[in-house]
Amino acid sequence: MGFLPSDESERSDAVLFAERLVFGPLLFQGVVSLRRRGVLQKLLRRGGEGATLETLLGELELSRYGLTVLLEAGLAAGVLQVDDEGVYRLARVGLLFERDPMTIANLDFVADVCYRAAAHLDASLDSGEARGLRELSDEENVYQALSTLPEPAKTSWFAFDHFYSDRAFKDLVPRLSARAPKQVLDVGANTGRFACALLAADERVRVTLADLPNQLAVARRELEERGLSARAHFHPIDLLSPELSLPEGFDVIWMSQLLCCFGEEDVLRILRAAARALGPGGELWIVDTFWDRQKQRAAAVTLMGTSLYFTTVANGRGRMYDSATMLRLAQEAGLSVKSVEDSLGLGHSCIVCGSAR
Amino acid sequence: MGFLPSDESERSDAVLFAERLVFGPLLFQGVVSLRRRGVLQKLLRRGGEGATLETLLGELELSRYGLTVLLEAGLAAGVLQVDDEGVYRLARVGLLFERDPMTIANLDFVADVCYRAAAHLDASLDSGEARGLRELSDEENVYQALSTLPEPAKTSWFAFDHFYSDRAFKDLVPRLSARAPKQVLDVGANTGRFACALLAADERVRVTLADLPNQLAVARRELEERGLSARAHFHPIDLLSPELSLPEGFDVIWMSQLLCCFGEEDVLRILRAAARALGPGGELWIVDTFWDRQKQRAAAVTLMGTSLYFTTVANGRGRMYDSATMLRLAQEAGLSVKSVEDSLGLGHSCIVCGSAR
Repeated sequence: MGFLPSDESERSDAVLFAERLVFGPLLFQGVVSLRRRGVLQKLLRRGGEGATLETLLGELELSRYGLTVLLEAGLAAGVLQVDDEGVYRLARVGLLFERDPMTIANLDFVADVCYRAAAHLDASLDSGEARGLRELSDEENVYQALSTLPEPAKTSWFAFDHFYSDRAFKDLVPRLSARAPKQVLDVGANTGRFACALLAADERVRVTLADLPNQLAVARRELEERGLSARAHFHPIDLLSPELSLPEGFDVIWMSQLLCCFGEEDVLRILRAAARALGPGGELWIVDTFWDRQKQRAAAVTLMGTSLYFTTVANGRGRMYDSATMLRLAQEAGLSVKSVEDSLGLGHSCIVCGSAR
Repeated sequence: MGFLPSDESERSDAVLFAERLVFGPLLFQGVVSLRRRGVLQKLLRRGGEGATLETLLGELELSRYGLTVLLEAGLAAGVLQVDDEGVYRLARVGLLFERDPMTIANLDFVADVCYRAAAHLDASLDSGEARGLRELSDEENVYQALSTLPEPAKTSWFAFDHFYSDRAFKDLVPRLSARAPKQVLDVGANTGRFACALLAADERVRVTLADLPNQLAVARRELEERGLSARAHFHPIDLLSPELSLPEGFDVIWMSQLLCCFGEEDVLRILRAAARALGPGGELWIVDTFWDRQKQRAAAVTLMGTSLYFTTVANGRGRMYDSATMLRLAQEAGLSVKSVEDSLGLGHSCIVCGSAR
């Protein structure tokens, strides 16, 4: 960035880092507008040629003032570069906001689901409830609110959720199928996405979907539309119930992106219920993203940031766990850990447990 | 940060940078809570010794869950470090959030004045009005709202404003005084902070404060309390009036942190009024922060981020200008630029103009 002097000392590096963090919310909104108003796309198309403010003005629905402050916010955010002739180009980072589906899914999720809610962090910490959810819904937690979330929050929520789970399922369904389970219990089945993937891939398996009744209704529709409901059963369940019990007789109990939604005490209660329900030879497959198992620092940052979504939007109790905590809870619940496999999909791990009895 | 792998490629650097930007709003709120709930202070006191989660839990009003997600957000934000024994310490960046008054003034300003308002960026760009101000006030612009802003927004606004202007005035008052002006017109006098500094430093000078009537009332009280009102006059003025004229007969017309509050057309109109009001030998002193005149990249980032405060909170038209734009407008207004001095206070510049007639 020719117009900005390079930093001279370690302290000024720290100051730059701090100021990017402090002005992060403003720069974030600037980048959201640069993307949604098509500025990044125009610059992507022009590639190395770039474009001046005048050129862009003729092609966009923005005032001269609006385009000026957005372009300069883009410089400050590091997504744009400008040369001495006033020609703007996408920086390497800016390219990600047009080309990288993960960055885009994350951006939409933070912008539409988390941004306003995050301002309620303190109230959420004090109350133990996700006080930010009130920005989107009157429900008590996001899981009860999902089917009635306003747009664009609803679309961004599911796009974020599915972006990661779809990629994990692609790696996990063949692994599970290779074990040839006859009966699988999908705990926290949500919209039935995993059940669909497994039922479609494996003609012999039967899947029981367990979740809240309103989620099961959505999942049932999904399975029926795809002609996959013949080998599916539906088991209404409230995982927050103090007397939780899971149905028995399953070869595999499956919990994908589920336990992160709960506080440690609830995780322990759910894992104990799984341990009780497991027969001899039965296995519990815990699929989640653990920040201490990531290869990329960016992934760890993403996960630890997402924990504050659980605090302020989801239910005030969940978080993206580290695997050390999860393995300790599994042992405390009376499970024996058989294997841990990392780097499934985009950073998922799969912990396979048996009953310790 | 031992627990996080270092990045291997340029692409992963870009991804890390992008994810910090995307999760910036969540990490920002995490850092605000870490500071306001005393976690950073506890860790600062313990220095190299650091503290575990258990130790901190005993000293803070936070649940185990709350402290866990905050500490992990601090790791993700880069303000904390943790070692293999689970001992947390302040990172170099974290130190700034306890020790550096600039970082703290900026943090409070963004948290209390800008955060919620920034979510209204698109509406502000479309309407040409600061739609985010509605989060704080029913007034049309922040200048009319200042005296009635709710807390903590009011305190944080003035702390931010005064932090920069106080340091600039310290460098500028002696320079202005050395020129021995008899009559100074302080345009946009706000709370009278500059007038007080000049009147206290220079026993011969007389200052006329020009601003909106409600601001003048505040300024008058300030001057009276300090016993500085004898050589002060008060001139009510609406700088947005289409028929703006400034009173004549002043040796120096002073505009400090003023022109950034206006759009280019208004800046031109105000500068033309100044050019008309300047007598032979009279000077216009324009004091502002220009992002293209900063030595530190951090300062440029701060200023370009602050432009979005003008868009969403202040009035939907102002911005932190680059000096090239300001010099062009001065010439267009019929002024001749006599000198430009940079690096006054924390990155202010002073443009001294005479009438070109």
